[in-house]
Amino acid sequence: MSSNTTYADWIAVDWGTTHLRAWAMVGDTAKAEATSDDGMGTLERDAFEPALLRLIEPWLGQGTMPVVACGMVGARQGWLEAPYVAIPAKPCDLAPVQVPTHDARLNMMIIPGLKQTDPADVMRGEETQIAGFLGANKTFDGVLCLPGTHTKWVRISAEEVVSFQTCMTGELFQLLSEKSVLRHSIAPAGEDAGAFAQAVSDIISRPEKLAQRLFSLRAENVINGLEGTTARARLSGCLIGAELAATKPYWLGQDVAIAGSPVLIDAYSKALMTQGVEARTFDAAPLTRAGLARVHTTLTETA
Amino acid sequence: MSSNTTYADWIAVDWGTTHLRAWAMVGDTAKAEATSDDGMGTLERDAFEPALLRLIEPWLGQGTMPVVACGMVGARQGWLEAPYVAIPAKPCDLAPVQVPTHDARLNMMIIPGLKQTDPADVMRGEETQIAGFLGANKTFDGVLCLPGTHTKWVRISAEEVVSFQTCMTGELFQLLSEKSVLRHSIAPAGEDAGAFAQAVSDIISRPEKLAQRLFSLRAENVINGLEGTTARARLSGCLIGAELAATKPYWLGQDVAIAGSPVLIDAYSKALMTQGVEARTFDAAPLTRAGLARVHTTLTETA
Repeated sequence: MSSNTTYADWIAVDWGTTHLRAWAMVGDTAKAEATSDDGMGTLERDAFEPALLRLIEPWLGQGTMPVVACGMVGARQGWLEAPYVAIPAKPCDLAPVQVPTHDARLNMMIIPGLKQTDPADVMRGEETQIAGFLGANKTFDGVLCLPGTHTKWVRISAEEVVSFQTCMTGELFQLLSEKSVLRHSIAPAGEDAGAFAQAVSDIISRPEKLAQRLFSLRAENVINGLEGTTARARLSGCLIGAELAATKPYWLGQDVAIAGSPVLIDAYSKALMTQGVEARTFDAAPLTRAGLARVHTTLTETA
Repeated sequence: MSSNTTYADWIAVDWGTTHLRAWAMVGDTAKAEATSDDGMGTLERDAFEPALLRLIEPWLGQGTMPVVACGMVGARQGWLEAPYVAIPAKPCDLAPVQVPTHDARLNMMIIPGLKQTDPADVMRGEETQIAGFLGANKTFDGVLCLPGTHTKWVRISAEEVVSFQTCMTGELFQLLSEKSVLRHSIAPAGEDAGAFAQAVSDIISRPEKLAQRLFSLRAENVINGLEGTTARARLSGCLIGAELAATKPYWLGQDVAIAGSPVLIDAYSKALMTQGVEARTFDAAPLTRAGLARVHTTLTETA
């Protein structure tokens, strides 16, 4: 522990569009965690520093506290833009951008996201998850899938991100199941493993049929009494199937790892299984903090 | 004009989810039109009759007034369910369902929708548009496309609906352009004919790439400055392209007609043009009223 604080050496921050999460860190161990709903999406520029202080003030001492953040806080609409770094790039070597603060106790830094020019793609936050993943899997050479609102498929070799592709499958599922006409026919939860696997296979073999399958979930419910849980599984299978059809060059014949929430790990690994791909799975929850710790260690070592 | 009214012989009503539209009719000519926002989606069951009376009371005389309605008013959640009629069916021969009313002056009737069992599909309201279309195109033998929130592709022969398919392309476009992350990159209006046609062709030739193309609109904007109007045209082209890929058995080698709003007619005919299909186009605005008039005429003749 540094001499000028009583509680933490540094603070790790995961600051996304809807949530702010901070950890009081000693080395790569978290001593405390605090969260709030002050996501980047709800804050004006001059509200970021107060929002952070509300959360971490109890952890500050008299001296200067390093704060390493990742996520949408570094977007153009965030606290300060941390410009995207072009791939190929090593996620654990990304140099954070220094953020001027009013409170002199803060040494505030934001990790930049990654960009790919052609085909155009961007990530912000996932680069830090990847750094965390690679900390425990240094020799990984293959494709890492990070399922979520905007799922990322990332080709990794020699600790470097070589290329990546984003599919907005999670957002599409949410919009269709909650905001479209299909909402009347889709259960809010529940599973049907058979219907899911069938829908994945159907779309991968006939991807041109996607536009037809969506409304049929509603029609099957109205005239044939299709169960809401089956409709939910079919919608999920259609959309993940369409994603697998689009990302086939990523997963075909590769070593595939999936890091996500338990629910999404389950869905994506079962979907890949229909294509004969056995993916290794990892819980994504600790990865962001681990990645922030790796970047902090690199900073300390090179300082 | 009938002897017991001073203004109209009958009343035509187009009652959808969001709007209510009524016409005071003499034969197949509208003498007056009235509209309100009392769509089926906003009304409890016992609110339908008052909502209708607010609009048409000035047109009522002392006697009984036939009112012929179509649309979601006949759905299970509507005023009274007019059960779907199975295809094949002639839209102008559909027998309306009689609706009991408190006001004895109303002789209220609702035209049923159509259903297809396999693959499951339903329509409600479009059957009346088709009746109107066929009134002016009795010998039509081919495929009628009715683009909208839920676009219908309808195989017609000998005035009969033989089969049909729904694609929720309009709803998808609205959700993605207004509610998803793409909204930041998509202009609220504007065209780019070249980008549209290219996107249509790309998806028809590589339908498995759809899931990838969507997020790329956002990424192209963020890192390459893609124009909002071009992004809008590409999104529209992707989604209509995916629809054409799914409906190819409908339009390939067929006589194709499109009936819709001027904007949608333009988009769908240009999209089909990329595939060498020249569709005839029709303004959909007068079709519902014309269809209601045809059904009313059939009722009168068979009465």
